[in-house]
Amino acid sequence: MRTDLVAALDIGGTKIAGALVDGGGRILVRAQRPTPAQEDGDTVMAAVAEVLKELAGSPLWHEAGVIGIGSAGPVDASTGTVSPVNVPGWREYPLVDRVRKATGGLQVVLVGDGVAITAAEHWQGAARGHDNALCMVVSTGVGGGLVLGGKLWPGPTGNSGHIGHISVDLDGDPCPCGSRGCVERIASGPNIARRAAANGWRPGPDSDTSAAAVARAAAAGDPVALASFERAGQALAAGIAATATLVEVDIAVIGGGVARAGEVLFEPLRRGLRDYATLSFVQRLTVAPALMGTDAGLVGAAAAVRHALRDAPPRPPAAARSAGA
Amino acid sequence: MRTDLVAALDIGGTKIAGALVDGGGRILVRAQRPTPAQEDGDTVMAAVAEVLKELAGSPLWHEAGVIGIGSAGPVDASTGTVSPVNVPGWREYPLVDRVRKATGGLQVVLVGDGVAITAAEHWQGAARGHDNALCMVVSTGVGGGLVLGGKLWPGPTGNSGHIGHISVDLDGDPCPCGSRGCVERIASGPNIARRAAANGWRPGPDSDTSAAAVARAAAAGDPVALASFERAGQALAAGIAATATLVEVDIAVIGGGVARAGEVLFEPLRRGLRDYATLSFVQRLTVAPALMGTDAGLVGAAAAVRHALRDAPPRPPAAARSAGA
Repeated sequence: MRTDLVAALDIGGTKIAGALVDGGGRILVRAQRPTPAQEDGDTVMAAVAEVLKELAGSPLWHEAGVIGIGSAGPVDASTGTVSPVNVPGWREYPLVDRVRKATGGLQVVLVGDGVAITAAEHWQGAARGHDNALCMVVSTGVGGGLVLGGKLWPGPTGNSGHIGHISVDLDGDPCPCGSRGCVERIASGPNIARRAAANGWRPGPDSDTSAAAVARAAAAGDPVALASFERAGQALAAGIAATATLVEVDIAVIGGGVARAGEVLFEPLRRGLRDYATLSFVQRLTVAPALMGTDAGLVGAAAAVRHALRDAPPRPPAAARSAGA
Repeated sequence: MRTDLVAALDIGGTKIAGALVDGGGRILVRAQRPTPAQEDGDTVMAAVAEVLKELAGSPLWHEAGVIGIGSAGPVDASTGTVSPVNVPGWREYPLVDRVRKATGGLQVVLVGDGVAITAAEHWQGAARGHDNALCMVVSTGVGGGLVLGGKLWPGPTGNSGHIGHISVDLDGDPCPCGSRGCVERIASGPNIARRAAANGWRPGPDSDTSAAAVARAAAAGDPVALASFERAGQALAAGIAATATLVEVDIAVIGGGVARAGEVLFEPLRRGLRDYATLSFVQRLTVAPALMGTDAGLVGAAAAVRHALRDAPPRPPAAARSAGA
């Protein structure tokens, strides 16, 4: 029996993925359902239960003593509840309790999705070997997580590293979060696309107005598209520099759809770091593209369990545990 | 013999203070010299050695097995060197090695002064009982430090919590650090005074143009003085909200001369937190005035030792140790 096997859930606004992950980070069994994001809370939970039931069909299931959950945020690990922005049926939804019941009593570790991908990049990806790291996703939103002193730092509620909603422009545009000039308000994909369009960029014959299309235009030299990525890189640099100045991370790992724009984003970002990361102790700060692929959330949920268990050992697997209860 | 006695140094641009501090945070012996800040490095070190020699004259000296140093920054705890901005004779000065030699081989723990005052406020002051706290000094500069998960987080080089040099206005005024729109560039005493003067505020018959004079004018209702403190409070709020959003601190403790302005500063600061600390997990964030007085640096240097020794036990005190070697 492998005591290092853990179950993992990656819960987002589009899909609910589950897996059994071994001590080397390999996914041995997987299951997935679409997220019925616009349905009521119980319907969303029923999809989670289906994923768990499918995993429980594996003969390996009974080897897993703990389940890790990385969920779209905000989450509250202190109360075991989640309130994902894109899943309105779940508001302070008692996910930890429901998953515990659905698995016949598995110990549950809950973190935000930014914390989960950070755990994955630190375990197996671009932040490996870095004791102090910020890992980010730049996509429809901007999220992140922190490793400090070699340990994941989820914070008391599992939300640490929320770099998308720090203000780098205190008089800037209002953000849906209620603040102003947030990193996400400037650097997310939709905001890159919006800014380019507002400044006169027009899509090609395919009518694609996404950030990916703006990235292609920027790579081809379109000055308005370039300027929009320049501004995004500057905001990310200010936010990353702030993080390093506050907690002394020495690497920022960046994944997500917008990061796939490559040098169109990374070049102004690196330049921006020279402008904003000025104190001696942050000048060695580097940025790197994320290495974990679409499984980062699942592997990260498993990694978050590993981090959590260093402090509190797991309970032994229950003898007569079953899923779908 | 009290094994909990530690020696402490608080090194700033104006004075070099030393003490023997017991396990309850009481200062049993103290010594002090002015900092010969404009002299060469060896002359500054000679003043440190005099402080140490005076402490070593106490019969308690031989009970101290470790010495904690809180120094004006930047410091580099990883190399044991300091480069205080206001002490030009010390650039990458090997302070840890020199203090070790001057004390006949005491174990030395070095942190930045912001980290030291944080350790003090967490041990005995306004952050007591808070496992996740930001402590700040708002004065000629703006500095700080962090407690995370109940532990001091100095970072690899001892500089964590440098909130004064995070940018909250990425297009803002150039800061002497090389960045733009730093919290310090907006909220320090000299910048509060400068902004008031630039907007037409004039001092009274005493010709006092300091931030303290601007604070008195603001308390008396002068709109330009009030506006300058309003802007400082806003910048501090954006910086504190960013810190909480990144690492989930639940209290910001604020000391230093500018904080003595009281509600003139704290009222717009609290209002600003409602604007910038918007995510669910940071809405319980509070601010509180610092409680430790002028001894915060010394008590904090001793507290930093206590934190450091939780990870690595101290060497036993040397039998034939002496200071002034």
